[in-house]
Amino acid sequence: MTTDCGLVGSRYVYIYTYNITTTKCSTWNIVRTVETRRVGGAGNFPSMPTPSRGRCGSMKFHTEYLTLHTKTKRAYVHLTPQVESALKKSGIKDGMILVSAMHITAGVYVNDNESGLIKDIDQWLETLAPFRQNYQHHQTGEDNGDAHLKSLIIHHEVIVPVTNGKLDFGPWQQIFYAEFDGQRDKRVIIKVMGE
Amino acid sequence: MTTDCGLVGSRYVYIYTYNITTTKCSTWNIVRTVETRRVGGAGNFPSMPTPSRGRCGSMKFHTEYLTLHTKTKRAYVHLTPQVESALKKSGIKDGMILVSAMHITAGVYVNDNESGLIKDIDQWLETLAPFRQNYQHHQTGEDNGDAHLKSLIIHHEVIVPVTNGKLDFGPWQQIFYAEFDGQRDKRVIIKVMGE
Amino acid sequence: MTTDCGLVGSRYVYIYTYNITTTKCSTWNIVRTVETRRVGGAGNFPSMPTPSRGRCGSMKFHTEYLTLHTKTKRAYVHLTPQVESALKKSGIKDGMILVSAMHITAGVYVNDNESGLIKDIDQWLETLAPFRQNYQHHQTGEDNGDAHLKSLIIHHEVIVPVTNGKLDFGPWQQIFYAEFDGQRDKRVIIKVMGE
Repeated sequence: MTTDCGLVGSRYVYIYTYNITTTKCSTWNIVRTVETRRVGGAGNFPSMPTPSRGRCGSMKFHTEYLTLHTKTKRAYVHLTPQVESALKKSGIKDGMILVSAMHITAGVYVNDNESGLIKDIDQWLETLAPFRQNYQHHQTGEDNGDAHLKSLIIHHEVIVPVTNGKLDFGPWQQIFYAEFDGQRDKRVIIKVMGE
Repeated sequence: MTTDCGLVGSRYVYIYTYNITTTKCSTWNIVRTVETRRVGGAGNFPSMPTPSRGRCGSMKFHTEYLTLHTKTKRAYVHLTPQVESALKKSGIKDGMILVSAMHITAGVYVNDNESGLIKDIDQWLETLAPFRQNYQHHQTGEDNGDAHLKSLIIHHEVIVPVTNGKLDFGPWQQIFYAEFDGQRDKRVIIKVMGE
Repeated sequence: MTTDCGLVGSRYVYIYTYNITTTKCSTWNIVRTVETRRVGGAGNFPSMPTPSRGRCGSMKFHTEYLTLHTKTKRAYVHLTPQVESALKKSGIKDGMILVSAMHITAGVYVNDNESGLIKDIDQWLETLAPFRQNYQHHQTGEDNGDAHLKSLIIHHEVIVPVTNGKLDFGPWQQIFYAEFDGQRDKRVIIKVMGE
């Protein structure tokens, strides 16, 4: 916004120039400049406060969807790079990221990217929630009762903190998608929320 | 805000009209209109940037509490309709919803709304965290040690993404309240946070 | 921002004074005052809307890190006081708090602060994810395979709702850090997000 004002009979014209820029994500920048031009007469303007730069309401949301199609029925897919990429695109410096499976036979967890441990996790989940024929869910024609229970143990989503534009993780924390009924397209939502 | 300015000796008066409206939830709408009226002399106004519509700081929070009283000690209650209703009331289009049990003998999870699977989940939780007399917690006079452990497996809360004003779920995802020590009033908090 | 405007040939000068103050956390306050001074001629100003006070974009983020060093390999540390302290420092009245272990052999959960139950939880986790030598993860030289699995059951993070400047918990809900491979410095992140 630029405002130019002349006062009748004054010696001066004060030209107040405000530039207010709005962006898609609601950030306002105000830059004030003031010029004084002699016109005639005695200026009688009240003093003008200086808003200088104001920052206001820069909350942003960025949502992405990944499609995963694993070759095996059960699989563990490292997702940290994709989440970091979504964060970078969002431009968010401080906030939280929701990473969530959009299915009820898959999960998302945070743990080590170590192949031995991933095998341990897979065997352990099979012990706690084994594949078997006689789940009552199978009366619907499904055969993936164990995948639902494995998903419940691992949990279907995580929240990742973001600080200074980076995943605020400890040194070994990595994000994994856990597939328990794969060999078909499955989706993950990544929602970044912050400033 | 409306600003009308005349410059001494100019042929034109530029009338810059800004309408800034503020609402309870901090949304600003700016509508600029410019009229030019001939007055005399050569206008010497600097060009005026166009803020057009700016959106700024419409972050909202909406909180609701549900009270549930199940007829049986253990029960699984479908909550998706109540969460959708809270979202609608909030007016939020993009954000996250926290759905959390306010008790330590209950949980909230996302999975299938299929009665056979719900029976499988119940039996499976009883296998992993069985009801028995000799929990050390029972020395306090309680008899619900198993309910605490079942709550820990299922987890007490979920975060649901919101996009375009809707729960951003896959086709089979539904929100459930899992009661492990019912037959009395229990509460669930639904907190919607976004824009 | 103060805008003073005179219209050529008018009897009046309308002095519109806007004070816009910006604060660190992006709150704007607008106070409008209008004075009318007779100058000459018939004033022909369009009516001026009243923005009065607008509040805009006071979203805040507050991040803290705790360092815990437990005397025993497994330990359960009550964190509610630290989380309440972080909330107080943040000044946030409505929002969510992420409390998350920054390690893959520890967790954060919400349940009862009762010593008998804590022993039950510990024994139960040892049953479901026992310490043993032959985890494949141990081929890397580690011996904490069980700690990873215990962390996965308990989950590494919780989201705590904030309403009216307080943790919006039920009467028995308390936040715990669960250590499964301690006797060394471990960190927890507390991120408060809201208004």
